[in-house]
Amino acid sequence: MTGGFHARNLAIVGMGLMGGSLALAIRAQADQIVGIDSDERARRIALERGLVDSATDDLYTGVNRADVVILATPVRVIVELLRMQLGSYLRSNTLVVDIGSTKQDIVAAMAALPIGVNAVGGHPMTGKENGGIDEADGRLFRNRPFVLCPSRRTTPAARLRAQALAQSLGGLPIEMDAERHDHIVAGISHLPYLLSATLVATISNRAQDDATFWALAAGGFRDTSRLAASDVTMMGDILSTNTQAVATLLAQFRMQLAMLETMLIAGDEERLSESLLPIQAARKEWAQKYENGR
Amino acid sequence: MTGGFHARNLAIVGMGLMGGSLALAIRAQADQIVGIDSDERARRIALERGLVDSATDDLYTGVNRADVVILATPVRVIVELLRMQLGSYLRSNTLVVDIGSTKQDIVAAMAALPIGVNAVGGHPMTGKENGGIDEADGRLFRNRPFVLCPSRRTTPAARLRAQALAQSLGGLPIEMDAERHDHIVAGISHLPYLLSATLVATISNRAQDDATFWALAAGGFRDTSRLAASDVTMMGDILSTNTQAVATLLAQFRMQLAMLETMLIAGDEERLSESLLPIQAARKEWAQKYENGR
Repeated sequence: MTGGFHARNLAIVGMGLMGGSLALAIRAQADQIVGIDSDERARRIALERGLVDSATDDLYTGVNRADVVILATPVRVIVELLRMQLGSYLRSNTLVVDIGSTKQDIVAAMAALPIGVNAVGGHPMTGKENGGIDEADGRLFRNRPFVLCPSRRTTPAARLRAQALAQSLGGLPIEMDAERHDHIVAGISHLPYLLSATLVATISNRAQDDATFWALAAGGFRDTSRLAASDVTMMGDILSTNTQAVATLLAQFRMQLAMLETMLIAGDEERLSESLLPIQAARKEWAQKYENGR
Repeated sequence: MTGGFHARNLAIVGMGLMGGSLALAIRAQADQIVGIDSDERARRIALERGLVDSATDDLYTGVNRADVVILATPVRVIVELLRMQLGSYLRSNTLVVDIGSTKQDIVAAMAALPIGVNAVGGHPMTGKENGGIDEADGRLFRNRPFVLCPSRRTTPAARLRAQALAQSLGGLPIEMDAERHDHIVAGISHLPYLLSATLVATISNRAQDDATFWALAAGGFRDTSRLAASDVTMMGDILSTNTQAVATLLAQFRMQLAMLETMLIAGDEERLSESLLPIQAARKEWAQKYENGR
């Protein structure tokens, strides 16, 4: 089932939660793993925990012998790396896979790589509330979808190798074009973040007059507001590289909200119930199918 | 610390999650507990699990000997009970406390009770994802705020007795007027529900063209959408008895969302970050203070 993925020299650029988790998950399939990060503490912990065989802050030193390079930095750093020096450092036939959260900008930037370098956009649909290499977990990818987006530098062989890589992590590879990916994640990830943040902003505003808002908030608020605690730099990076899709989904959200609000204000309880019942059913069905009912 | 609450004959109208949990939590402070519910299965389980000493579907039989009556049905059933026959069935000096999720309509209806009956509006800020008497849990109220709202039938003695009742359940009594309560829960509970439901409606709509929306949804969607699975009858009841406050909070939410969206679409990342950082800090501070960091 692993599709026989193997790397002689695997370089991971970015030793955070995702890069570190990937290192752990792929340990047995790589002869050598090199971790590249500008942060001394991240490099030290990667070495101490045995996630990597060596660590460096120098991109050239890290990637020039690699046959597989994973880009695990924030989205816009990935785009910069692809547009600037990375391509000239790589050997021919190297496979480059990124794991950034939005894909259109990255897949477009992959076209700037030299012919002979193979590149596939990737996005494992997984994560943790708290980031950082200290949270690295080799089981993070297991049974989770791993989206793969072809680029102009994706050969048929690169496609298969990227699939094998995703499977070797325990992930479920799903191929789609970058635009479709970005539209979907705008709905299931970026829109929820914005709603969560806006909810907290609304309550913060009210709580200036009455701090009891915070004291009475319970489980429903906890769940709905959880994403508002996400890393702001990471989310700003994601939103700014997916503005159009996010704005589209926001417009659709507003339309749906206006429909429910109209029924509520009009006191049309029958239509409100008729609208809420299929929503309840859809959420329950999703939880049954994908989350063991949670 | 329990304030010495004691009931000779405690009647609980509504043997669902909340009524059943309250019966469990107050067992030791009541000589006799009577459960009243029209549903035969709920009555049977309440008896089998020993939550109550007796059970009936007849309101008069259940409450006519009570010195304390707890109303634990949906909000509009509570309002109906208060406006219609309940008052005439009660003995003088009986304490009536409801535990409905909105308070203005209920507290107003308490004025219809005969002089001599004491009544206090109540709302324990707790719950569970799944309702029903099968989920009854005597620890549900522990260390959770228990809002108490005075009515025209609240004497000083009734106020103290209701506080003692809340404390005997392990709850933390907080007094406020019904209007303030309803405004707060519109923000921390009803607005989150509507956002959650609207998010699911938006994704359902998109998923008609591309079912992959559901397959890729992960933890962020799970948390933000969880409330959409709430019981529709219960939520319809709550929303319909708090329309004005919910509409007010929705308007404030829209304003906050429009501000963030404007920055996003304008590509003003600096202002976007400056807006998101205090939101992140507020959510983290709330979690630290009230939810052990969750």
